[in-house]
Amino acid sequence: MPNDPNEEARSVDVSGEEALIAEFWAPLAAGADGAFGLQDDCATFSVPAGEEVVVTTDALIAGVHFFPHDDAADIGWKALAVNVSDLVAKGADPLAYVMNVALPRFDRSWLEGFTSGLRSAQEAFGCRLIGGDTDRTPGPLTVSITAFGAVPAGRMVRRVGAKRGDYVYVTGSIGDAALGLALRRDPSLGPRAGLDDDVVRYLAGRFSRPRPPVAIAPGLLATASAAMDVSDGLVKDFDRLCRASGVAGRMEAGLVPLSVPAQAALAAGCATIEGLLTGGEDYEVLATVAPDAAAGFEMRARSAGVCVTRIGVVTEGSAGAAVIGATGEALSFTKTGWDHFFQV
Amino acid sequence: MPNDPNEEARSVDVSGEEALIAEFWAPLAAGADGAFGLQDDCATFSVPAGEEVVVTTDALIAGVHFFPHDDAADIGWKALAVNVSDLVAKGADPLAYVMNVALPRFDRSWLEGFTSGLRSAQEAFGCRLIGGDTDRTPGPLTVSITAFGAVPAGRMVRRVGAKRGDYVYVTGSIGDAALGLALRRDPSLGPRAGLDDDVVRYLAGRFSRPRPPVAIAPGLLATASAAMDVSDGLVKDFDRLCRASGVAGRMEAGLVPLSVPAQAALAAGCATIEGLLTGGEDYEVLATVAPDAAAGFEMRARSAGVCVTRIGVVTEGSAGAAVIGATGEALSFTKTGWDHFFQV
Repeated sequence: MPNDPNEEARSVDVSGEEALIAEFWAPLAAGADGAFGLQDDCATFSVPAGEEVVVTTDALIAGVHFFPHDDAADIGWKALAVNVSDLVAKGADPLAYVMNVALPRFDRSWLEGFTSGLRSAQEAFGCRLIGGDTDRTPGPLTVSITAFGAVPAGRMVRRVGAKRGDYVYVTGSIGDAALGLALRRDPSLGPRAGLDDDVVRYLAGRFSRPRPPVAIAPGLLATASAAMDVSDGLVKDFDRLCRASGVAGRMEAGLVPLSVPAQAALAAGCATIEGLLTGGEDYEVLATVAPDAAAGFEMRARSAGVCVTRIGVVTEGSAGAAVIGATGEALSFTKTGWDHFFQV
Repeated sequence: MPNDPNEEARSVDVSGEEALIAEFWAPLAAGADGAFGLQDDCATFSVPAGEEVVVTTDALIAGVHFFPHDDAADIGWKALAVNVSDLVAKGADPLAYVMNVALPRFDRSWLEGFTSGLRSAQEAFGCRLIGGDTDRTPGPLTVSITAFGAVPAGRMVRRVGAKRGDYVYVTGSIGDAALGLALRRDPSLGPRAGLDDDVVRYLAGRFSRPRPPVAIAPGLLATASAAMDVSDGLVKDFDRLCRASGVAGRMEAGLVPLSVPAQAALAAGCATIEGLLTGGEDYEVLATVAPDAAAGFEMRARSAGVCVTRIGVVTEGSAGAAVIGATGEALSFTKTGWDHFFQV
């Protein structure tokens, strides 16, 4: 909105949106034909014949989704990773993304860090910036990314589709990011749990630099009956998937893959199984696979270098998800995950 | 980010993101196949064979792009309109959009107003919501929309492409939105300029409910050598188009189409030609057309019901745009338009 013309432009060392685009954003678009060097009003991209676009959008807001003083490179990485996570869980390869950034204040070094994190994430996930919008804001830093992938038309892996008897799989390990966040909040936790510095760094990185398993996408497309990413807590997300599919599901707590550091924290009494299974921020994939496709799914995962673990089964009914403990009892949790919507 | 579990969820009368999606956003996605009722993690859409996706993204931030207490329906309308404006200027029909909303506080009536404005805009512009993300924010209301259209592959109308001798056209009328904003800031301006209430409302509406000329898109695609939307001020945007194309351009100030109210304000000394030509927020289209295609462009515009006016010509050189006054002199302006980036 045009303000009072007498108002002075804020003094910053980047002289306007166009200069900022040219110096910081345009290099992220290098080589992307339809980005037009970020110098036009729109971008273009295409998907192969017979395929359709898969699109997702997620924002990160300082103080809501990350700590305001988090490392700028981590913020850049995570802003892209959380979007890529949604694409991957739907069986789509990431192709490109556009980004809206609302900046409260910044300097060259912050922008350099932020773009270096984005660049690393682009390279890790195989996609490029093709467009965006940059504004100043009187509020917190807000990064909204909209990311694009492609799947054969009509083949996106939905939350809907899980069937009674399907096996339930999860990629990677669960709970590390929740532990990483807990360690950020209480640095004494590491020594108490007997975790050395390398392990603490690993867990912190699982929170600040999630790495969705991009290589699993073709396997999901070929074999999964339903899938979604695990972002708000495994228990909550499993329940959502079951309810969307109109089925019930059982997950064995003891089968959920935990990293060695998470097992150590659990053994030391510095973490609970509830905390790990409901903590969120995992950015792994939860998938259901029909029994006769399970061997194929596991083989595809193995050859893609993605660890997958069978943690449960889809059952009769439509009552959502149950988590079964070591002695066969249904565990009950005070909360199943996070509703980011209220986390301000 | 998962906060301290002891923190109470804020008390609002909408019980969480899922409830908000179901009640307010999902109706905006009704009938859009690939939106999956906004109940999955991603959306899908496709473009006809031989076409490619055109994508743009623009955010509106309270206090930056609109007044914080603006009518909620106007905010919804404008958030979509500013994105559609970019698509249209590139020759693309709007197909669909995704939306990120960061809400500081809200109640049911605000959400109802906001969605009613979005719904009206969807109907006016012919596109539907297919996905999004809603968060709470400690900062100002921020609405980021990413909108999609399609053009035959490789045919997007660029800023690049204007050639010496091309005619310069603009759609609709220029300066009304700047006047509408001035009237918001100084309500005494209307009576001083002899504008009656209907006229004041018209001008206010030109600022709060821009209506990009969707119907001109096919005409641009068929005949324009270059185009962009006019959002930051006609003079500034013409200069940008010329520089992107590596040409110079001349625009006759006296040929720029002004509405009757704008002419009245000018005659009453309550507006200046500089203010109208540099005020921005017009969301009209600026286009260059080769002389031998001009008759076709004008005919297509006429049959689409879009007024177009020839205001200048592309000239030799690469010095950007000049604005010529009534006596043939080059006008010089203290500013040519707005850099939204600094307007906080």
